[in-house]
Amino acid sequence: MFNFHEQVSLQNKSNDILTIGEILIDMISEDYDDNFECQAYNRFFGGSPSNIAINTKRLGIHSLVVSAVGADGLGDFLKSQLRKVHIDTKCIQKVDYSTSMVVVTKSQFTPVPIFYRGADYQIEYTSILEDAIKDSKIIHFSCWPISMPLSRRTIEKSIDTARKNNALVCFDPNYHPMLWPKGEDGIEYVKSFIGNADIVKPSEVDAERIFGQDHYENQVEKFLELGAKLVIMTLGQDGAIVSNGKETLKFHTLAKEVVDTTGAGDAFWSGFYTAIVKGHTIKEALELGFAVSAFKLRYTGAVVELPRLEKIKEIYSL
Amino acid sequence: MFNFHEQVSLQNKSNDILTIGEILIDMISEDYDDNFECQAYNRFFGGSPSNIAINTKRLGIHSLVVSAVGADGLGDFLKSQLRKVHIDTKCIQKVDYSTSMVVVTKSQFTPVPIFYRGADYQIEYTSILEDAIKDSKIIHFSCWPISMPLSRRTIEKSIDTARKNNALVCFDPNYHPMLWPKGEDGIEYVKSFIGNADIVKPSEVDAERIFGQDHYENQVEKFLELGAKLVIMTLGQDGAIVSNGKETLKFHTLAKEVVDTTGAGDAFWSGFYTAIVKGHTIKEALELGFAVSAFKLRYTGAVVELPRLEKIKEIYSL
Repeated sequence: MFNFHEQVSLQNKSNDILTIGEILIDMISEDYDDNFECQAYNRFFGGSPSNIAINTKRLGIHSLVVSAVGADGLGDFLKSQLRKVHIDTKCIQKVDYSTSMVVVTKSQFTPVPIFYRGADYQIEYTSILEDAIKDSKIIHFSCWPISMPLSRRTIEKSIDTARKNNALVCFDPNYHPMLWPKGEDGIEYVKSFIGNADIVKPSEVDAERIFGQDHYENQVEKFLELGAKLVIMTLGQDGAIVSNGKETLKFHTLAKEVVDTTGAGDAFWSGFYTAIVKGHTIKEALELGFAVSAFKLRYTGAVVELPRLEKIKEIYSL
Repeated sequence: MFNFHEQVSLQNKSNDILTIGEILIDMISEDYDDNFECQAYNRFFGGSPSNIAINTKRLGIHSLVVSAVGADGLGDFLKSQLRKVHIDTKCIQKVDYSTSMVVVTKSQFTPVPIFYRGADYQIEYTSILEDAIKDSKIIHFSCWPISMPLSRRTIEKSIDTARKNNALVCFDPNYHPMLWPKGEDGIEYVKSFIGNADIVKPSEVDAERIFGQDHYENQVEKFLELGAKLVIMTLGQDGAIVSNGKETLKFHTLAKEVVDTTGAGDAFWSGFYTAIVKGHTIKEALELGFAVSAFKLRYTGAVVELPRLEKIKEIYSL
């Protein structure tokens, strides 16, 4: 039971947060391309768990990311970006598959991402990974690794190790049908996984993909029924609703200026994690999560130059 | 038996050449990136059999390409490029996989291409494909489709139909180990396939990947022993050596100015095919193939604005 007015009790470990999941290239068109006239693309660091590792590091806590890249130039680029913010890359495995990529061509209509998955779902459960879990206060993972057999087994073992070592386990149910192998019921699998997590943070879109359309209060209830202990449901510009099963809080967005929504969810997670590591109560941590998200919304890109959490507190008078 | 001083006897069909194989995006970095400082890439139309279809169309004969793209923006872009040169896209299948892509990051050292294969090897043997084969004088295919089970079966059936309809069958043995599923012996498979073709055109690099290092005359012999009837082995700036098993000719390069070697092999095939369709002897067609290749070498890009074959003849006084 998570009490909103209490701190989360975390073990004394050398690393604060370990994220497990996709690290990848976001290849994004420079301009709109509705008539095939834009041939220029730009290569960015990407993958939600990897973004969270960079964000939390910048906000002021210790982070590690577990993922896999190919033995290629794009994999080398991704590792170089982690080293730039002084994140140890010991948990980035090098495998015999191409570094994963998502291509997004901007469109006046709905831009449809194209997934090129290779290395990202080849994450093995290694002794380095096991040691990293034992040394971490919080374990965070996304839907990407559980969508494929090898990395799914790695996540299952990782959760087991995290539980035995009293880590906080958090899950981003960012289900997308394109991630799952054809013919497999990804939705059922995600549902069965929710009970493994202490905290889940679905967006409205995630919830709709998993449960179909419904009022957000009912959606939150469904996540609780499946075993999540704290459900943080983000509602875009309408803020968020958070429930621990007994009490439900509503949060308003702190964003006054919205330049780019990419990575806003990762920014929330990052502020929330940093705050609970720094000893804030859950309610304070939620507010700080929304503050970091609001800060990110003012800039373009999935990962922006976040200041330390203390600066965010000042900016948003928290 | 191909006599160098005779024409190739081709059936009277409505389409001249049908190429089967990969259509894909070449995503190429704008600049060198040895220290991860170049984030700009450009999207190009690519895939050797598709390049040949465009080239031969521009040189003045009728061409079609058989391939598969994803139901995505990149697939739509590729089809739009074919339509631009008035190639019918009826043989481009739309499948439930991402449009294939090759990423090349320029490097002062050896640039290593990264393969992202999806749609390209999902080519099915359809009635549209069967009719197109029956209507074509020449069938050309590459190593890409034979590297994977579904498209390999499609190629096998296509060759069968081509034989029954007396089409000329040509194979580009552009073997690359990264194309083959891990654990499968691609080299053995390519060797076993060579006898299915009337004409093969290995480069020195192709031959070395398949047979190991050897003198080029020995390499040509190996292709003949495996059943190819005409072997055209290109030797880069050293020209080419061509053998019909009885007689061997040596050709010198016609290139005086080399700006970019990408697509030079496809340009050769294109000139050669166009010339045999237009009734030239094999020796003349080989010379015209090398002339088109020399023309292409003067410009940047895999597919350049080729003139009609008659213009090439004028330029190179052939």
